[in-house]
Amino acid sequence: MATFVMQTLGCEVAAINTVHFSNHTGYRQFKGRRTPAPEIKELYDGLRQSYLTDFDVLLSGYAPSAEVVEAIGTIARDLRYRSTVHPGGFFWVFDPVMGDQGRLYVSEDIVPAYKALVREADLILPNQFEAELLSGVSINSLSGVANAVRTLHKTQGTKHVVVTSVGFGDEGQKNGDAGTLTVVGSSRKQDGSARLFKIEVPKLNCYFSGTGDMFAALMVARLREAAAQANLLDRASWMPNDVVEAVDLPLAKATEKVLSSMQMILEKTWRARDEEMQKFGLGPGASVGGVEGEGETVGEDKRRFLAETKAAEVRVVRNTKDLIEPEARYKAEALEV
Amino acid sequence: MATFVMQTLGCEVAAINTVHFSNHTGYRQFKGRRTPAPEIKELYDGLRQSYLTDFDVLLSGYAPSAEVVEAIGTIARDLRYRSTVHPGGFFWVFDPVMGDQGRLYVSEDIVPAYKALVREADLILPNQFEAELLSGVSINSLSGVANAVRTLHKTQGTKHVVVTSVGFGDEGQKNGDAGTLTVVGSSRKQDGSARLFKIEVPKLNCYFSGTGDMFAALMVARLREAAAQANLLDRASWMPNDVVEAVDLPLAKATEKVLSSMQMILEKTWRARDEEMQKFGLGPGASVGGVEGEGETVGEDKRRFLAETKAAEVRVVRNTKDLIEPEARYKAEALEV
Repeated sequence: MATFVMQTLGCEVAAINTVHFSNHTGYRQFKGRRTPAPEIKELYDGLRQSYLTDFDVLLSGYAPSAEVVEAIGTIARDLRYRSTVHPGGFFWVFDPVMGDQGRLYVSEDIVPAYKALVREADLILPNQFEAELLSGVSINSLSGVANAVRTLHKTQGTKHVVVTSVGFGDEGQKNGDAGTLTVVGSSRKQDGSARLFKIEVPKLNCYFSGTGDMFAALMVARLREAAAQANLLDRASWMPNDVVEAVDLPLAKATEKVLSSMQMILEKTWRARDEEMQKFGLGPGASVGGVEGEGETVGEDKRRFLAETKAAEVRVVRNTKDLIEPEARYKAEALEV
Repeated sequence: MATFVMQTLGCEVAAINTVHFSNHTGYRQFKGRRTPAPEIKELYDGLRQSYLTDFDVLLSGYAPSAEVVEAIGTIARDLRYRSTVHPGGFFWVFDPVMGDQGRLYVSEDIVPAYKALVREADLILPNQFEAELLSGVSINSLSGVANAVRTLHKTQGTKHVVVTSVGFGDEGQKNGDAGTLTVVGSSRKQDGSARLFKIEVPKLNCYFSGTGDMFAALMVARLREAAAQANLLDRASWMPNDVVEAVDLPLAKATEKVLSSMQMILEKTWRARDEEMQKFGLGPGASVGGVEGEGETVGEDKRRFLAETKAAEVRVVRNTKDLIEPEARYKAEALEV
């Protein structure tokens, strides 16, 4: 997901795979292998020995162990060091994948490993739960999110933060729709204070897989684009002057575009998913990607769950136009709480 | 390369990586890991258990060991079996990566492993040297290529063949240009005879890396497109009737498009490579993707070799338009020798 999205937006990507799985873990069953930390370091050494480490941006995502988190930190430090003579020549987008909706889906020792690295990243992309874990601030309202971001700016020194999905209980769901999802971002001022903006998008009543990686990958391309437009690429962390208001931040501009692309693609995924599942209803296993008659004794419930999981995978490959040229759907608003 | 090109042309790809290397082996140094055969089988089992094996096409490329070749055969057989009730519902494009220019770059036991599988594939994409290895016919002229293809049709039963690059010595190079490269293809008739076509393209005086995978990936998308236009997708091996002439074969139409895309992108890669190498000449290692002053004692020659190798990597990411909508540059001609 991340590699394809970045490539589609024109980035030359060298991907180090942190896992080699048959499918994503949302299927509740998978086979394959987690890449051990020494292999990740070795691959980076391989790039280094052939002068292939002239990266402008590092995007780090899911890591299967605390050792891999540390290996990513080592790589990021080396890339940062190599760009010391060119401030802004290296930018680290850090997606601290740990869990969602109050549930941790990585091993517990990954949490402190991430916490130790957060201060070295340029931009972090936690969801609501991950923002709580990293900041230590519990989030039950928009002002909770704001406080978590302020804490990350102040105590961790994090330059840019986007909390990628914020929602509280079932407000808005009473009138039948799925409510809204709020995305909150901020770029730190020199005194460590926040410049908070928010963008609200309609919530789609479906769990899609691939959204986190899609968000991060779009953000890499869009933030660099916005920073280039603001002539910030030669500044450390592409940081705009303190006079720039929250809604005018390159981070806010980038987030607007990212969310427009995402929403357009999620709507299409949703429709395609419904069509797929209607076919499924027509008969046992009809055309939803399996074959009958091999004596498999998988129950209909499990069969349906697997088909639903597949149908909810975000469809980017045939919707690249929405990645490249999204409608201008959303506008950041200042968040003052 | 292959994954991105297929995705750009609208294919949903599930990639099983046969290696996880820091860089391609043309650099003469690399780090990383070959995927062991049991892991490849395990990943396929993982796809199977979640009903994720509804593939229309299998593209197999570089395999790091004879065991991996056998694992690919096992997977192809399973996919074929699962589509027995839908002829044409599964199509195997087999790129028998073994070597080039008379030099084998895989271990010797891979050759018989490939030979054993060739008859099961729908389309094979050997280069000149690989066509010699698979057919046992030595190739010194166009009629040699024709004989190799006829042999593959007759003795191995191969349905479709494209010999991806054919060239003999330095004919044509006398007048200063790099000469031409000939691509020869054929779809077998029912009696086992060939329908041979050829397409000539200008040869670019540079060794690019990624061309083989680009060719194979483009072919997957273009052959399926051409077969769909000829209403052949429900026929075994998408095989046209015997009355269809060589130049009207879906394989010929597909090859025309594939070569147009390739040539457009190779020309751009060539120009970009020259610009890159001119920068290199300006100073020791200036902006060609390394960092000086770290006490590295790599000789200037090696440094230049590595930079040239990088610069000659085919540039697809920013040239997707040429993949999607190539000019109509080439026309297949009947090959009668």
